[in-house]
Amino acid sequence: MTTTTATDMDTLLSDVRNFVEERLIPLEPKLRTDGLAAISSGIESAREVAKENGWWCPQMNAEHGGMGLSLHDFGRLSEVLGRSPLGHLALNCQAPDAGNMEILADHASEAQKDAFLDPLTAGEVRSCFAMTEPENAGSNPKQLSTTAERVSDENGEAYVLNGHKWFTTGADGADFTIVMAVTNPDADNPYQRASMIIVPMDAEGLEHVRKIPIMGEEGEGWLSHSELRFHDVRVPVDNRLGPEKHGFTIAQERLGPGRIHHCMRWIGICERAFEMMCERAASRELSPGTPLASKQTIQNWVAESRARIDAARLMVLKAARTIDEKGARAARVDISTIKYFVADTLHEVLDQAIQVHGALGVTDDTLLSFWYRHERGASIYDGPSEVHKSVVARRVFREYGVNL
Amino acid sequence: MTTTTATDMDTLLSDVRNFVEERLIPLEPKLRTDGLAAISSGIESAREVAKENGWWCPQMNAEHGGMGLSLHDFGRLSEVLGRSPLGHLALNCQAPDAGNMEILADHASEAQKDAFLDPLTAGEVRSCFAMTEPENAGSNPKQLSTTAERVSDENGEAYVLNGHKWFTTGADGADFTIVMAVTNPDADNPYQRASMIIVPMDAEGLEHVRKIPIMGEEGEGWLSHSELRFHDVRVPVDNRLGPEKHGFTIAQERLGPGRIHHCMRWIGICERAFEMMCERAASRELSPGTPLASKQTIQNWVAESRARIDAARLMVLKAARTIDEKGARAARVDISTIKYFVADTLHEVLDQAIQVHGALGVTDDTLLSFWYRHERGASIYDGPSEVHKSVVARRVFREYGVNL
Amino acid sequence: MTTTTATDMDTLLSDVRNFVEERLIPLEPKLRTDGLAAISSGIESAREVAKENGWWCPQMNAEHGGMGLSLHDFGRLSEVLGRSPLGHLALNCQAPDAGNMEILADHASEAQKDAFLDPLTAGEVRSCFAMTEPENAGSNPKQLSTTAERVSDENGEAYVLNGHKWFTTGADGADFTIVMAVTNPDADNPYQRASMIIVPMDAEGLEHVRKIPIMGEEGEGWLSHSELRFHDVRVPVDNRLGPEKHGFTIAQERLGPGRIHHCMRWIGICERAFEMMCERAASRELSPGTPLASKQTIQNWVAESRARIDAARLMVLKAARTIDEKGARAARVDISTIKYFVADTLHEVLDQAIQVHGALGVTDDTLLSFWYRHERGASIYDGPSEVHKSVVARRVFREYGVNL
Amino acid sequence: MTTTTATDMDTLLSDVRNFVEERLIPLEPKLRTDGLAAISSGIESAREVAKENGWWCPQMNAEHGGMGLSLHDFGRLSEVLGRSPLGHLALNCQAPDAGNMEILADHASEAQKDAFLDPLTAGEVRSCFAMTEPENAGSNPKQLSTTAERVSDENGEAYVLNGHKWFTTGADGADFTIVMAVTNPDADNPYQRASMIIVPMDAEGLEHVRKIPIMGEEGEGWLSHSELRFHDVRVPVDNRLGPEKHGFTIAQERLGPGRIHHCMRWIGICERAFEMMCERAASRELSPGTPLASKQTIQNWVAESRARIDAARLMVLKAARTIDEKGARAARVDISTIKYFVADTLHEVLDQAIQVHGALGVTDDTLLSFWYRHERGASIYDGPSEVHKSVVARRVFREYGVNL
Repeated sequence: MTTTTATDMDTLLSDVRNFVEERLIPLEPKLRTDGLAAISSGIESAREVAKENGWWCPQMNAEHGGMGLSLHDFGRLSEVLGRSPLGHLALNCQAPDAGNMEILADHASEAQKDAFLDPLTAGEVRSCFAMTEPENAGSNPKQLSTTAERVSDENGEAYVLNGHKWFTTGADGADFTIVMAVTNPDADNPYQRASMIIVPMDAEGLEHVRKIPIMGEEGEGWLSHSELRFHDVRVPVDNRLGPEKHGFTIAQERLGPGRIHHCMRWIGICERAFEMMCERAASRELSPGTPLASKQTIQNWVAESRARIDAARLMVLKAARTIDEKGARAARVDISTIKYFVADTLHEVLDQAIQVHGALGVTDDTLLSFWYRHERGASIYDGPSEVHKSVVARRVFREYGVNL
Repeated sequence: MTTTTATDMDTLLSDVRNFVEERLIPLEPKLRTDGLAAISSGIESAREVAKENGWWCPQMNAEHGGMGLSLHDFGRLSEVLGRSPLGHLALNCQAPDAGNMEILADHASEAQKDAFLDPLTAGEVRSCFAMTEPENAGSNPKQLSTTAERVSDENGEAYVLNGHKWFTTGADGADFTIVMAVTNPDADNPYQRASMIIVPMDAEGLEHVRKIPIMGEEGEGWLSHSELRFHDVRVPVDNRLGPEKHGFTIAQERLGPGRIHHCMRWIGICERAFEMMCERAASRELSPGTPLASKQTIQNWVAESRARIDAARLMVLKAARTIDEKGARAARVDISTIKYFVADTLHEVLDQAIQVHGALGVTDDTLLSFWYRHERGASIYDGPSEVHKSVVARRVFREYGVNL
Repeated sequence: MTTTTATDMDTLLSDVRNFVEERLIPLEPKLRTDGLAAISSGIESAREVAKENGWWCPQMNAEHGGMGLSLHDFGRLSEVLGRSPLGHLALNCQAPDAGNMEILADHASEAQKDAFLDPLTAGEVRSCFAMTEPENAGSNPKQLSTTAERVSDENGEAYVLNGHKWFTTGADGADFTIVMAVTNPDADNPYQRASMIIVPMDAEGLEHVRKIPIMGEEGEGWLSHSELRFHDVRVPVDNRLGPEKHGFTIAQERLGPGRIHHCMRWIGICERAFEMMCERAASRELSPGTPLASKQTIQNWVAESRARIDAARLMVLKAARTIDEKGARAARVDISTIKYFVADTLHEVLDQAIQVHGALGVTDDTLLSFWYRHERGASIYDGPSEVHKSVVARRVFREYGVNL
Repeated sequence: MTTTTATDMDTLLSDVRNFVEERLIPLEPKLRTDGLAAISSGIESAREVAKENGWWCPQMNAEHGGMGLSLHDFGRLSEVLGRSPLGHLALNCQAPDAGNMEILADHASEAQKDAFLDPLTAGEVRSCFAMTEPENAGSNPKQLSTTAERVSDENGEAYVLNGHKWFTTGADGADFTIVMAVTNPDADNPYQRASMIIVPMDAEGLEHVRKIPIMGEEGEGWLSHSELRFHDVRVPVDNRLGPEKHGFTIAQERLGPGRIHHCMRWIGICERAFEMMCERAASRELSPGTPLASKQTIQNWVAESRARIDAARLMVLKAARTIDEKGARAARVDISTIKYFVADTLHEVLDQAIQVHGALGVTDDTLLSFWYRHERGASIYDGPSEVHKSVVARRVFREYGVNL
C-alpha cells in the first residue's frame, strides 16, 4: 500500500469532491428521468477526467493501475464518491467490479489476469458476481444449489454449470461473471463445497432471464440486478478462480473491504441527504419569514441525524483502520456491527429527509426517492441486519464461555 | 343512512372479501408489471359484477345509487377493499372520486348534479381535486396562490382561474376537476378567501404539465398524480360549488369520512402484508425443516405488528362510530390521532414484511414494493403527521387553559 | 354476573373517580414520604366509605360480597382505581388478594372458604401467592423446584414443603400464602406436576428472609415483595387447593382476569401521568408568557401518548369483552398482546411525563418517580414481554401450518 | 498539560481498572444496602492507595497536585472510573468538586485558592455548586432569581444573597458552595447579569432545606442533591469568584470538560452493565443446557448495545480531542451532540440489561437498579436533550443562512 500523508488525502478528498460537484451531480437530473444510457457520454468524459487525474481504481495497487490507498483512506474517498450515485462508477470502483478486481488480483492466474483483470481495471469492460439464489436463504451458504460438475472428455477438462441465480448486479452489459458453484458436494465441511468459476456472459446455455424489477424499476447496466439461469454451461477448467473448495474462503476476503466500501458510500448518501434536508428546511417557508427550520421537530431530526451520521463514520473508519493494521480477522465484530448500524442510519436519515421535503420528497424531482428505493436493500444484501446481529452476539458470548 | 344489521354486514364483508380474492387479486401481477391500462377489461368486468351485486358507491346514499352505509360500516368495508390496490376502484369509491361525490351530493346545484355527480356515481367518468400547490406548504391553507377572479362581460359572469397545482390525483383521464381557488382575497378570515370551482379538464388554458414521477413511476389514470397549470381558465359562475368563501368549510367536511376511508384502506394493506409476512416466514426454510418463522426476531415482528394493527383498527372504528353518532366535530382529536398512528403502523408493517421477504421483498414480484413506494406519502398527504400531532396537542392543552 | 346498565356504570365510574380524588389522592404525599403505615388510618376510613357505598370486591360475585361486575366493567373500574396507588386497596381488589379470592371462590372447599376466603373478602386479612423462584426462569414453569411431599404418619396426612420463593407480593403482614409446589414430580406432563397448597404465614419452618429491596425501596405490607424459604413446612392435606396436579390449570384461570386488572390499572396510571405532563407543560414557563406547552417536542409527546393510551384502552377492553362473551381461550392472543403493548405504553408515557417535569420529574415530589420505579417490572412480571410476543407469534404461525 | 505517551496511558488505564476491581467494586454491595457512610473507611483507604499511586485529581495540572492529563486521556480514565459509582470519588475527581477545582484554579484569587482550592485538591473537604432554581427552567439562564446585592456598610463591602436553589449536588457535608447569583440585574445582556460567589455552608442565613428524595432515596454526602434557601446570607466581596458579570462566562468554561467527564463516566456504566447483561444471559438457563443467550432477542440487544456503546465512545473521544487541539468553541456542536447521544445510549443499555436480568433486574441486588434510578437524570441535568438538539440544529442552520 502506498503511504499517503494526511495532507495529500485532504487535498485528494477536496479535489474529488469538486469533481463530483462539477462533473457528476449535473448528470443526475437526466439520470433520474431518462436513465443511465442517456448520460453515457457524460459519464465517459467524467471517467476520462478522473483517469487523467490519477483518480482511478482507488482500491487497487499501483501495479494494477490503482491508487493504492489504505482501506481507511479508500473509505474516506468512498464517502465523497457516495455523494452521487455516479461517484464510484466514475473512478472505476463501483460494485461488483471493485470486488471482482480485488479477488482477481489476489487469486487469478496470469492468463486470467490478462483476460479478465486487465480489461476491468482499464475500465474497458464490466463484470458481475453470481452468488445469491432465489430458492435459498442467502444467510445460509450451505444452501447453495448451483453446481459445477467437472467433466473430462474429448474436448478437454471442463466444468458444466447448472443453476439459478438472481440479484446478479450489473449483469446487463457485463463481459463475464464470477459464479459461486458447488464443485465438491461431498466435502465434509459445507464451507468447502464451492468454488469460484469465471464464466463469459455470452457462454452457451447462460440465460439472462430478466433484469429484476426492483422498487418499480428494472434499471439498466451497472444499475440493474439480473436473474440468470445456467443450463449445462461449459467452461474450461482453467476458468476456475483459485483452488477448488476455496469459493467461500475467497468470498470471505471480499467482506471487509466490501463492507467499508458500502458503508462509507452510505455515509456519503447520508451527508448529501442531510444537506438537502437542511436546505429545504431553511428555504421552505411556512408563512412569510418563518422557515420550516423553525419547527422543533425538524430541529430534532437534524440534530439526531447529525449525531447518527458522525457516529457511523467514526465506527466505519475505526473498522477500516483495524483491518489496515491488524487484518480483517481482528475486525470481525466491527465489520458486522457497522453493517446494521450504518444501514439503520441510512434508512433513518433518508426517511427524515423525505418527510422534511413533504410531497416533493416522494417525487423523483430529487434524488431522495431514488435512494429511498435503491437503498432499502442495505439492510438485506451482504447479509440481513438480523444475521449480523447474531454474529456479533455469538462472538461476544464466546468471551462468556457460551458457544452458540 | 340505511340501517345495516350486524349479520348483514358480516355477510357483506365476507362476500366482498371473496370478490377481492377471486376477481381483483388475480389482476395484480399484470398491474405490477404492465400497469393499469393493461388490465382495464378485467377491471371493467369486475366493476360490473360489483354493481350487479349492489356493491357500489358504499359511501353514498341510495338516492345516489349507493349502499348507504354508516361511516363505521363503510370503514369495515374499506379495510376489505384495501387488501387490493383495485378494491376501491372496483366499487367506485376510489379517491378522489369518492370524496368528490360526497361534496357534490351535499353542495351541488341540481344542474351540477346532473352534469357532474350522476356520471360519477354511475362510474362513467372520473374526476379529480386540485388543491395542493408546489410553492406553498400544504399545511398552511392561508398560503393559497391560485386565484379565481370573477369577471362579468359580454359572455356573462365567469371565473377566470390562474395558478399552479400538483398532486392532483387521477387527473390523467378525468373529466373534470374541483379546484380550490382564492375568490375573496380580502376576506378578513383567511379561511374564507377560497371557493371551490368545477373545471372541465378540457377547458381552454388548463395545461396538464405532467404526471409527476413518484418513487420511480409516473403511473397512469387513477393511479397517477398530476401537475396542472391554469392560464386564464374561464368557467361560468355556475360552476362554483356551494357559496363563495365556503371552500375551506366544504373541504373540512370531507376530512372525517376521507380519513376513515384512507385509514381503513391502510389497515387492509397492513393485514395483507401481515399475511404475506407470515406466509413467507412459514414457508421459507433456513435449513431443511427450520422455517424462518422459528427466529425470535421474526416472531417479535409478527407479534408487534399484530398488536399495532389491532390497535389501529379499534381506533379508526371508534372514530368512525363517534362521527356517526356525534358528528365530526366531536371526533376531531380522534380524526387527527388516527392519521399519524395508522400511517406509522402502515410504514412499520410494510417495512417488516419486506425485511422478512429478504431480497424478494425489494423486487416487484410481490405487492410489498408497490405499497412501500406508493404509501410512503401516507405520513405526508392530508397533512403531515407532525401537523396532526400539533393539532391534537393544541386541543389537549386548551383543556389546561393554554391556547397555542 | 350481575347485569350493569351503561348508565349505572357511568355513574359508578364517576362516583368512584370522585372518591379517588377526594379520599385517596390526598393520602399520597404522605405515602411518598413516610410509607404505607403512616397513612393506615386514612386508608382504613377510605375502605369503610367504599364498603358503605357498595364499592367492594368488584371482581367478586354478590354471594362473596362483591359487585359482580363483568370483566369489561371491572376493567373500566380498574382504570379509575389505578389513578392512585391506593385505589385497588381501597376497594379490596388489590393484587394478589383479588386473584386469590377468585381461585378460592372457584376451587376452595367449604372449610377453606370459611377459613381463608371469607376473611379476605371481608377485608380483615391479606394473603399472598408464592410462585416465582429465584433459581428458575419464571417463563418456564417446568423449572419449579419447591416440593410438597405427601407424608402420612401419626399426625395424619400432610404435605411437607421445601423450597425457595421470591417476589411473593404482600407477604409482609399476610395471614396466609398460596404456594405452587411440586407434588407429583413423576407426572408425564410437566404441567401436571404441581399443586397449590395454602400455608399460614406463621407455619413452623416458613422463613421470611427479607422484603426484597426493589428500585431503592423494600416497601412494606401490600407494597412489598418478599423472599421466603420453606424448611420442612408441614400443613394438613386439606390445605391443598383443588385437586392434585391442578396447580397450573388453576393458575392459568387467573391469567385473563389478572391481565385485565393490571393492564387497566396501568392505563389509569397513564392517564394520571398524562394529566400531570399536560399540567406541567401548561404551567411551566420558559419565559414570561411562553409555556413549555408551546414546544413542538412536548406537543409530539402529548399527541403520541394520547394516541397510545387510547389504543391501549381499546385493546384491553376488547380482550375483556371477548373473555366475558367467549371465554379466556378465545382471547388468548389478545391476552398476550395487551401485556406487552400496554406495558410499553406505560413505560413511554411515564418516561415522557418525567422528561416534561425536568429535574422535578426525578424527585419524589410527584408520583411519577414512584411509578417509574414500581412499574419497571410491568414488562417482566406475569411473563416478560419477549415471552408473550413468542406466544402470539406461535399462535399466528399455527394458522400457517407451522408448529413452533 | 503533561504529555502522556500511548503506552503510559494503557498502563495507567489497566492499573486503575484493577484498582477499581479490587478496591472499589467490593465496597458496592454495602453501598447498595447501607449507603455511603457505612463504607467510609473503605473509601478512605482506597483514596489513600490512589493518592500514593499518583492517581489523583486527573483533571488538574501538576501544580495543583493533579495528573495533568489531556481531556482525551482524562476521558479514557473517566470511563474506567465510571465502572463503579465510587470511581471518581476515589481519585478525587467527582462532580461537582472536579468542576469547582477547575474554575477555582482558573479564576480564584490567591487567597481564595488557599482557602478553597487547596483543601479541595487535597481531598480534605468537599464543595458544591448552587445554580439550578426550582421556580425557573434550567434551560433558560435568563430566568435566574437568586440575587447577590452588593452592600457597603460599617462591616465592609459585602454581598447579601437571597434566593432558592435545588439540585445542589453534594451539599450535604460540603464546606462551601459556589453560588450563581444576579449581581447586575440591569445589564443589557442577560448573560452578564450574574456572578459567582463563594459561600461557606455554615454561613448565617443559609438554610439546608432538605436532601431532595430522588427516585426513592435522599442519599447522603456526595451522593445527594439538596434544596437550599438563602436568607440575607452575607459574604465579603472578596468571596466573588472572578469579575462581576462573569458568572455565565465562567460556567460556560466548565461545560466542555464537564461533558466529557459525564459522558465517559456513562460509558463506563454502559460497559459494566453490558458485561452484567452478557454474564446473566450466559449463565441463566431457560432449561438445562439452554442459556438465555441463545434467544435471538437477547442477541439483538447485545449486538445493538455493543454498536451503540462503541459509537458513543468514539464520539466523546473525538469531542475531547477537538477541545484539546482546537478549544471548546470548535467543539460546540460535538459537545451538544454527545449529551443526548450518550444519555440515550445509557438509558437503552441499562434498560436492556435490566430486562435480561428479569425480576432480579429490578431488585437492589445488582447495581443496575441503582444506575437506572440515579442516571435517569442524564437526559435532564446539564440541559435536557431537547435543548441540546435545538442547539445543534441552530448551529447547523446557520450554515444555511437561517438564524433561529
